Amino acid sequence: MQTKFLLTDSQIPKAWYNVVADMPNPPAPVIHPGTGAPVGPEDLAPLFPMALIEQEVASQRFIPIPEEVLELYALHRPSPLYRAHRLEKSIGTRSKIFYKYEGNNSSGSHKLNTAIPQAFYNMKAGRTRIATETGAGQWGSAMAIAGSFFGLEVKVYMVKVSYGQKPYRRMLMETYGATVVPSPSRDTNTGRAILEQDPDCNGSLGIAISEAVEDAAQRADTSYALGSVLNHVILHQTVIGLEAKEQMAMAGYYPDIVIGCHGGGSNFAGIAFPFYADKAAGKNVRLVAAEPASCPTLTKGVYAFDFGDTAKLTPITKMYTLGHSFMPAGIHAGGLRYHGASPLVSQLVHEGAIEAQAYLQNAVFGSAITFARSEGILPAPESSHAIHAAVIEAKRADEGGVEKTILFNLSGHGFLDLAAYDDYTNGRLVDHEHSEDNIQAVLGNLPKVSL
Amino acid sequence: MQTKFLLTDSQIPKAWYNVVADMPNPPAPVIHPGTGAPVGPEDLAPLFPMALIEQEVASQRFIPIPEEVLELYALHRPSPLYRAHRLEKSIGTRSKIFYKYEGNNSSGSHKLNTAIPQAFYNMKAGRTRIATETGAGQWGSAMAIAGSFFGLEVKVYMVKVSYGQKPYRRMLMETYGATVVPSPSRDTNTGRAILEQDPDCNGSLGIAISEAVEDAAQRADTSYALGSVLNHVILHQTVIGLEAKEQMAMAGYYPDIVIGCHGGGSNFAGIAFPFYADKAAGKNVRLVAAEPASCPTLTKGVYAFDFGDTAKLTPITKMYTLGHSFMPAGIHAGGLRYHGASPLVSQLVHEGAIEAQAYLQNAVFGSAITFARSEGILPAPESSHAIHAAVIEAKRADEGGVEKTILFNLSGHGFLDLAAYDDYTNGRLVDHEHSEDNIQAVLGNLPKVSL
Repeated sequence: MQTKFLLTDSQIPKAWYNVVADMPNPPAPVIHPGTGAPVGPEDLAPLFPMALIEQEVASQRFIPIPEEVLELYALHRPSPLYRAHRLEKSIGTRSKIFYKYEGNNSSGSHKLNTAIPQAFYNMKAGRTRIATETGAGQWGSAMAIAGSFFGLEVKVYMVKVSYGQKPYRRMLMETYGATVVPSPSRDTNTGRAILEQDPDCNGSLGIAISEAVEDAAQRADTSYALGSVLNHVILHQTVIGLEAKEQMAMAGYYPDIVIGCHGGGSNFAGIAFPFYADKAAGKNVRLVAAEPASCPTLTKGVYAFDFGDTAKLTPITKMYTLGHSFMPAGIHAGGLRYHGASPLVSQLVHEGAIEAQAYLQNAVFGSAITFARSEGILPAPESSHAIHAAVIEAKRADEGGVEKTILFNLSGHGFLDLAAYDDYTNGRLVDHEHSEDNIQAVLGNLPKVSL
Repeated sequence: MQTKFLLTDSQIPKAWYNVVADMPNPPAPVIHPGTGAPVGPEDLAPLFPMALIEQEVASQRFIPIPEEVLELYALHRPSPLYRAHRLEKSIGTRSKIFYKYEGNNSSGSHKLNTAIPQAFYNMKAGRTRIATETGAGQWGSAMAIAGSFFGLEVKVYMVKVSYGQKPYRRMLMETYGATVVPSPSRDTNTGRAILEQDPDCNGSLGIAISEAVEDAAQRADTSYALGSVLNHVILHQTVIGLEAKEQMAMAGYYPDIVIGCHGGGSNFAGIAFPFYADKAAGKNVRLVAAEPASCPTLTKGVYAFDFGDTAKLTPITKMYTLGHSFMPAGIHAGGLRYHGASPLVSQLVHEGAIEAQAYLQNAVFGSAITFARSEGILPAPESSHAIHAAVIEAKRADEGGVEKTILFNLSGHGFLDLAAYDDYTNGRLVDHEHSEDNIQAVLGNLPKVSL
């Protein structure tokens, strides 16, 4: 009875998979926030090194991974694929459940998969400093670690409510040499303007992005880096799914259902897109994005052009959105509290190739505890949405008298989220469901786009 | 350039290695705390199931690992062995450094290797409840997880200063269903007596052990469980070294030096004892235990019969000791703050087969940061003593113009020790060196033993 399916260093994928090559329609254009017209590579040059801009608009199916990135990937990759024998038994399902575990690295999540190449390409381009934001802290931690690998200075704008709630995340970033400030901060015009209006503002991912973008745009030595949403970030994460396909083959199964939790889209797309390639070629596989009911971007948002940030500094992309001024409830899955979504994921959801499901956090933590006590691993609150969706799908299959093979992405561990578990076990966790009514306001606040 | 050396599920060792079979002299007897005469198995029966008592006194070289334990080991074992290419480069050494990483499990350390079999044998013997203590929290976490695997109730007496400093550790244990109280507690006679004398007592491992032993001795459904020191605990940890030997062979090297940090002895012995088997057979390999200068049991303690706990409830063993009433300084490597040591490790130190070195915590954290920024992994403060010893040995080899192969045990991660890193990076970490003078007082306070 095999539990783990492992690959060796030499089996780390040598190229990332670019889903654009297999999509039925080309990606929607990206719009300049000032002119309302499509952006060109030169418009993005102040923010990103050209290698990443090229990946952002690339159309070839596979993009080679540089040797230097592969060497650093080998510190934490290939990641293990597990057959969840004990979880299956614990919930009494006839279905087979597999999970890919991305938490065995010091960022504690999949985020390091893109932080390493982003740091690498910036170093190669001569940039010496990165400005970025972080919500729950996973992305900021990954960028701090990757920055330390390449000797880059890293400045992290951390959503203020997380900065207060998660001192360990701040300390982790500082241990790897990063500078961390609570956002909104006094270090940017955006931050100062918001603090003037509301000195007690708790911050949001949208605001923190605005601060980091403003910082990067004003310094020639500095790039902006984003931990999700963008095409090149999604691209880097496909190592997850590429490895998982090999490992599922080792196990002798092909998944009927592939599940990832969904915030900005990167861990979901990371595991799902390499299977989408098969789906596009006719294979029968369901791809399911699991999101929080309090921030139901894919299930209740609108598919429209919108800003990625609150201060309207970022390029405008076509995506599912709850509106760029959306303020999410303070749920513990901080990494899933984003108003927008990956344009690539959004387009495939819109076209019906990807399904989305939304869950309340108490139910999600219930499944997290069941998983922890059976499989041993303490899951991140974000990743627990994928666990919960897998449990729901298994139970649904049992009720239907069928047996499914389910694969989900366990994107990170919950060591730095124990306060959330404490709230759950002591009955202090409140469910938040986003109201459909609010969505209507979004429509009136979307940017004008001239195509 | 290979970074990781991995074994598959089927390569998990099928038997534990018992060092007693290869020691030149039999282990010193264990003494009853009441009579001062050697204990028999029946004396230990109130505390432990007979299977563990048998392992405690076993003399055969290999003891088979039960199938049920192997299945649970497969959730986190085999653990990876890394070649520290980037650390070597970072410190500029010509030596080759390897490390075995035991932190990829939800207890965050090697402690789960013994918690699983201890829970298993207790379940088999019909015990339904475990009483144990924890200092820094790693052991309590491991016991909570293993207890949840076998449906055992787990009560943890957590040293009060850690209980206050490490709420995440408490929450982790509670997430896995354990009950955690600060020690000294009002739940035992020992705890109440100490609180009466000193209501603000911060607790110590010695006191917490007394409480857990008293708890277990008074309830037929309850066993006591210890996370280090005892022979059966050491035995279970040898899976580390047994795997490491296979992995070093895969890498094509045999270590000149094997290093582990040392508190009670279990992670050190876990990696070192399987190599001791070769040393006993004539192989030239140095075994080095690295301990904190503030609690220098092996380097400055006396080799004598002493109690394992403060209240003198435990059996008396011959070991290096700083005295059973020793109160260690509040260093961050909480897992290394124990007055005693494994009798097996002690005997081999006494006989010259094992070396010991002691280090101050600021130096240790310096090496920890170097390691984190080069290898990516954030090490536990305890494990960082092994890192530091490896760095020192590598530099010593460089100075001597020789090239060594060094293997150390990275026994755990530091995610729940970030406050310690915060103290270090902000210059708040104070070095404590234990004075030789205090040792003399120990000699006057040792138990009377009649042999």
